[in-house]
Amino acid sequence: MRLSRYFLPVLKENPSEAQIVSHRLMLRAGMIKQQSAGIYSWLPLGLKVLRRVEQIVHEEQQRAGHIPVLMPTLQSADLWRESGRYDDYGEEMLRITDRHKREMLYGPTNEEMITDIFRAHVNSYKDLPLTLYQIQWKFRDEIRPRFGVMRGREFLMKDGYNFDLTKEDALHAYNRHLVSYLRTYERMGLQAIPMRADSGPIGGENTHEFLVLAETGESEVFYDSQITDLTFGDRQIDYDDHAACAAVLEEFTSRYARTDETHDEAVFAQVPEERRKSARGIEVGQIFYFGTKYSEPMGATVVGPDGSRTPVHMGSHGIGVSRLLGAIIEAGHDDKGIIWPEGVTPFHVGLVNLKQGDASTDSACEALERELSARGLEVLYDDRDERAGAKFATMDLIGLPWRITVGPRGLANNVVELTNRRTGVSVELSASEAVSRLADVYAPVFAAAYKP
Amino acid sequence: MRLSRYFLPVLKENPSEAQIVSHRLMLRAGMIKQQSAGIYSWLPLGLKVLRRVEQIVHEEQQRAGHIPVLMPTLQSADLWRESGRYDDYGEEMLRITDRHKREMLYGPTNEEMITDIFRAHVNSYKDLPLTLYQIQWKFRDEIRPRFGVMRGREFLMKDGYNFDLTKEDALHAYNRHLVSYLRTYERMGLQAIPMRADSGPIGGENTHEFLVLAETGESEVFYDSQITDLTFGDRQIDYDDHAACAAVLEEFTSRYARTDETHDEAVFAQVPEERRKSARGIEVGQIFYFGTKYSEPMGATVVGPDGSRTPVHMGSHGIGVSRLLGAIIEAGHDDKGIIWPEGVTPFHVGLVNLKQGDASTDSACEALERELSARGLEVLYDDRDERAGAKFATMDLIGLPWRITVGPRGLANNVVELTNRRTGVSVELSASEAVSRLADVYAPVFAAAYKP
Repeated sequence: MRLSRYFLPVLKENPSEAQIVSHRLMLRAGMIKQQSAGIYSWLPLGLKVLRRVEQIVHEEQQRAGHIPVLMPTLQSADLWRESGRYDDYGEEMLRITDRHKREMLYGPTNEEMITDIFRAHVNSYKDLPLTLYQIQWKFRDEIRPRFGVMRGREFLMKDGYNFDLTKEDALHAYNRHLVSYLRTYERMGLQAIPMRADSGPIGGENTHEFLVLAETGESEVFYDSQITDLTFGDRQIDYDDHAACAAVLEEFTSRYARTDETHDEAVFAQVPEERRKSARGIEVGQIFYFGTKYSEPMGATVVGPDGSRTPVHMGSHGIGVSRLLGAIIEAGHDDKGIIWPEGVTPFHVGLVNLKQGDASTDSACEALERELSARGLEVLYDDRDERAGAKFATMDLIGLPWRITVGPRGLANNVVELTNRRTGVSVELSASEAVSRLADVYAPVFAAAYKP
Repeated sequence: MRLSRYFLPVLKENPSEAQIVSHRLMLRAGMIKQQSAGIYSWLPLGLKVLRRVEQIVHEEQQRAGHIPVLMPTLQSADLWRESGRYDDYGEEMLRITDRHKREMLYGPTNEEMITDIFRAHVNSYKDLPLTLYQIQWKFRDEIRPRFGVMRGREFLMKDGYNFDLTKEDALHAYNRHLVSYLRTYERMGLQAIPMRADSGPIGGENTHEFLVLAETGESEVFYDSQITDLTFGDRQIDYDDHAACAAVLEEFTSRYARTDETHDEAVFAQVPEERRKSARGIEVGQIFYFGTKYSEPMGATVVGPDGSRTPVHMGSHGIGVSRLLGAIIEAGHDDKGIIWPEGVTPFHVGLVNLKQGDASTDSACEALERELSARGLEVLYDDRDERAGAKFATMDLIGLPWRITVGPRGLANNVVELTNRRTGVSVELSASEAVSRLADVYAPVFAAAYKP
């Protein structure tokens, strides 16, 4: 993409309304624009990252065998009366009346609707296990929306729902989600720690939240420092293997890690003192097992092997897709701007032409752009007639992990400059070496992709 | 994908609520489920086609140089007061009040919001031309939603907006959209005819609708039969070339083709009688040039080359993404079910195992599944323990353009059966010949893709 033809409205000033760094940087980097309180437009750069995050979530859900569906944003109030939540939900639910005076709502979550889909179409235990998920816009009418996309009102969420014949199978679905979530967050360059949590209005007995440690987190968390040494890595897990998934759950949840809602000082005191940590965390996902809480009142039953009907065991599992962008920036930035992990960067590399209009630097840049593209790398080419300093500042602000700088002096020696955004280290090498270096850097990112 | 692990709730009975064939077939093929009047869930098969259609729209927009953004579904009423449309829009606009008693609405279109984004960020003619587009859910509170996704209330639409310094540039943007739309529809296997139309509540002087001819169309259309001989094909058009785009517009709009809103008997009478046709059509897109209708009241101006501020010239351009699925089915089905064009089929090929559980047919099917996937072809493998007739009926209903049938008798002669859904013609060939035949069939589909 040529910057001269792109729409990247970066701001020079710090927007006064932004209290936290991710909100500030998303506004400054031209990623989002506020339209109403807690409601944002996604400008091209922000949308590109949102789509990368979404794509990783899709791939890891499908790798785990989960099937995508898409439910509408608006729902009928009657459906929520069946579960009893219409009256319980409170003011965060945006209630709407249509022209025929029918009561509707903008879905804050979808347990009722997915249960309705299930009961309409599934009849036999032979069709189980089944996990359906979607990535769709939700609305929660927060009384004080703040922190940009971290606590917006209209937000993008992945919500998935498992349907199983037995509690044991449903707990395997729970474990399977935990494994898939660990992979998901690591592909985004995040460490998200599963912590025992409170179930809130979704209900249920088992639930874990996934938290990214960050100073600006809304939750206070308490944990055994050994937990931050765990990584999932590129383990090959058979998602149908109950024992293998249970072992991962055990490994990642046996050490103390809780949010303030479930924190227990007496249990925490048993952790050796030097490993007892408290910090702040950003919630980026949550998994629930809630058994027959929805299937029973809503009549979502299957005929079992013995011929009798039983309500299915369910759970629901969410990932805060739009809020993840905030969390990723909170976890990766410096005073110059954002530093994207390679797994989610909007463009793989920025290309800076130090002497726009000079025939040889222009043609060297165009050749680099072609060769990088041919290796599957997306390039943002700053082809504007601007000072070098302004071009560097824009690249630093928007946070592409790698930059190639091309100028007449380097070209005279057959070199370009390759700069790492995180370390700031630059090396001079030939254009073709720069291309193959970057292809190597991104090879594991491309290899991590899942094609169903 | 193995059918035993998929969620494909096909219906045996014809649903009584569906009046037209596309609605009936989408319900029967387990593509959608109605949740409220005019509001649907997209089940896995339906969602897969929706994503293919969406992907083609994205690719053709980006090929034309248009930049994707994403605006929220909910908008502030105040923004619509600036253009004067808040009071004009009528009952189709879903009006919402939030917990702080602020007036909001579910966007039926986005001229106001995109103009707001533009005026906040663009200041100079040097940043033009600019076309921003999105594919996002919209809501229009139709008094009588009907025909499934063809006239739903919550629907997915591509809406794009051009910003240009002069009327001449804006008319080039109009022409460019027309060209990109012709490519878009043809990639979906559709002939969509641009017809002069009425501008309705969007406003403006120039507008064309794109109509697919179908008996169930809502509009009566009148046209010169020569127009149905035109195809865009795989012409390489430089979208920056004003003359080239204008020539395409001239070619595709110089013959008589109008909806009943703009039909003129006197002009029509000049078409030779044997070429005068009337039919019904489904509207699948519309392009508008409306000049400064929104930029002037909303203050979307740029500093021009002479240093003075002028309001930008705009147009808006829509494609009915979700309704396209209905149009494609109306244009392609028979009494057994849907017949997908290869460009949008949910799976490229269906694989039917005639003797599930038999070691050699199972392993032949699994080998085929692997080899087809290795060629980039998505396979729906019916691995259920069902009668052949039931498997064929399901494949015919869901409309995959190709089917491979594997049975013990064929395997004894080293052949499988390759069947074309549209013609019904089957040929026997070796498994590897079937794979390369299909790879050849889909090569032009894959080649038509655009990677930015």
